[in-house]
Amino acid sequence: MPSGEDDLIARYFKPLATAPGALGLIDDAAVLSASGDDLVLTTDAIVEGVHYLPGDPPDAIARKALRVNLSDLAAKGAEPAGFLLTLALRNVDEDFLAPFARAIGEDAESFGCPLLGGDTVSTPGPVMISITAFGRVSPGRMVRRNTLRAGHRIVVSGTIGDAALGLDLLQGAAANISEDHRAFLVGRYRVPQPRLQLAQAVRDHAGAAMDVSDGLAGDLTKMCAASGVTATIDTSAVPVSAAGRAMLARDPAKLARILGGGDDYEVLCGVDPAQLDQFLAAAQRAGVPATVIGTAEAGTAAPRWFDADRREVSLTALSFSHF
Amino acid sequence: MPSGEDDLIARYFKPLATAPGALGLIDDAAVLSASGDDLVLTTDAIVEGVHYLPGDPPDAIARKALRVNLSDLAAKGAEPAGFLLTLALRNVDEDFLAPFARAIGEDAESFGCPLLGGDTVSTPGPVMISITAFGRVSPGRMVRRNTLRAGHRIVVSGTIGDAALGLDLLQGAAANISEDHRAFLVGRYRVPQPRLQLAQAVRDHAGAAMDVSDGLAGDLTKMCAASGVTATIDTSAVPVSAAGRAMLARDPAKLARILGGGDDYEVLCGVDPAQLDQFLAAAQRAGVPATVIGTAEAGTAAPRWFDADRREVSLTALSFSHF
Repeated sequence: MPSGEDDLIARYFKPLATAPGALGLIDDAAVLSASGDDLVLTTDAIVEGVHYLPGDPPDAIARKALRVNLSDLAAKGAEPAGFLLTLALRNVDEDFLAPFARAIGEDAESFGCPLLGGDTVSTPGPVMISITAFGRVSPGRMVRRNTLRAGHRIVVSGTIGDAALGLDLLQGAAANISEDHRAFLVGRYRVPQPRLQLAQAVRDHAGAAMDVSDGLAGDLTKMCAASGVTATIDTSAVPVSAAGRAMLARDPAKLARILGGGDDYEVLCGVDPAQLDQFLAAAQRAGVPATVIGTAEAGTAAPRWFDADRREVSLTALSFSHF
Repeated sequence: MPSGEDDLIARYFKPLATAPGALGLIDDAAVLSASGDDLVLTTDAIVEGVHYLPGDPPDAIARKALRVNLSDLAAKGAEPAGFLLTLALRNVDEDFLAPFARAIGEDAESFGCPLLGGDTVSTPGPVMISITAFGRVSPGRMVRRNTLRAGHRIVVSGTIGDAALGLDLLQGAAANISEDHRAFLVGRYRVPQPRLQLAQAVRDHAGAAMDVSDGLAGDLTKMCAASGVTATIDTSAVPVSAAGRAMLARDPAKLARILGGGDDYEVLCGVDPAQLDQFLAAAQRAGVPATVIGTAEAGTAAPRWFDADRREVSLTALSFSHF
């Protein structure tokens, strides 16, 4: 004693478990102390070869695993409270675990979301990383996705499509763009930026929200369907990065990939027009770009997409699905 | 739309998500409403071929996946509040998913631990089921494993060793025992009985507790190490089922397997002698057998094991470890 599993935990993860509720990772459970807040629960798993490429750097994998969950908390208007980490590993690989643990510890620190506990199991198959993250909101204040109403303005944070274009580049797509643009897009695929700074603006001023993980088009469709409304989007208003615009300039057909691809981890929300100025001002104070791209409308059809000349745009590949 | 993933969730799991905090599984997150209690968090993953056998019945796999987490809640003195389910699947297999979902729904209902949300991902590798369960305790009242004190009596619930013997039988071990005994031991391996009825007794009267998942010997050693004490155990007092005794009668060497094997999912606790009568009475009222097997003592050596004649018993294979 200790066993290999206990040793792995003690070596790589115990140093990160500084929050009192983690109990130093020696217990079977962790504690989140009563706070008077509702607790927002979200869980996302990533699988080697499915959600990340076997050659991806371990620190980027760690950050992505945690950040996709933090992105959900941000979109729900919640403040991070901590996370549990489950790792399924083929073996104890120092070259993977050391940078993985260091990076997830850095992110836990910088996003204020401490490691509380987890589980480590062996698998003969691909590595799998499953994270459950917890956030706090005042009672009843979690922002939902099924509360979009006709008349709400549709707003997205940041820029859309970068990650999908970055994945294409990693998978060998040819693109006559600068090294800077290439690095930016690949970075957006590998290491999302959860919009936690936007959580308060979402909580205070958004009528509905979700994060964009399976592509803007697909996720907006889901939000409309859950809310029983439709929407009209001006694709020329959708915020695209300079690197994305460089790709678009060379191949206008990339628009479908930008709108339909996944892994954006931006916030998509519906804002009552009476709240819009306050939402945008709060986003600006938080340092997060926010752009109005359309309007929710009565109806149950799929959202409609138009170009700058008000011609309807047809999107074929709408969303990523695992099955 | 909906995608295959959404369809899978809608078909198999939405019917189970009746708790208000599950939001019908259409959101990215779930909510646990503020209650004034501390929240106990526990997570355990099981992997096909590692934690269960590929031929195991899907309903048994489902029950085991949830129950190993409920066992942790019981040992912490917590009342179940809900769980998140993450499934990594190779494909959408009706023959697996239908009985799996039905069984986990039945257990969620009977143990009062509703499905709140989760994630479903595809994997090219073995099926993996990761569950995070939540329990409530009054602030500061979670029972820990590192609070065992010299003088505490060591108590276990139920019977020990059945699951390890059952696994041996499934893996082809010869045993000249009755079909009833065989079925009992295999059932104990496949479908643990989380001791949630014992949670209140643990909360009210135990000084330290954990569940026995990696074997009594190994888990007691961990509890002693975490608490900075040692213990002396009377192996003849360790509760063994009639089926286990039948195996022991044919092969006394099975004692090491009974004490060292895993998957018991019984509660191991330390009880102050002044609380012992009340603990045992509360256990009896709860209908859970509880047996005193030894005493914690000052010291930092590994626990010592003695037979009925006070001869020391040497245990070789102490605990299951994944690596």
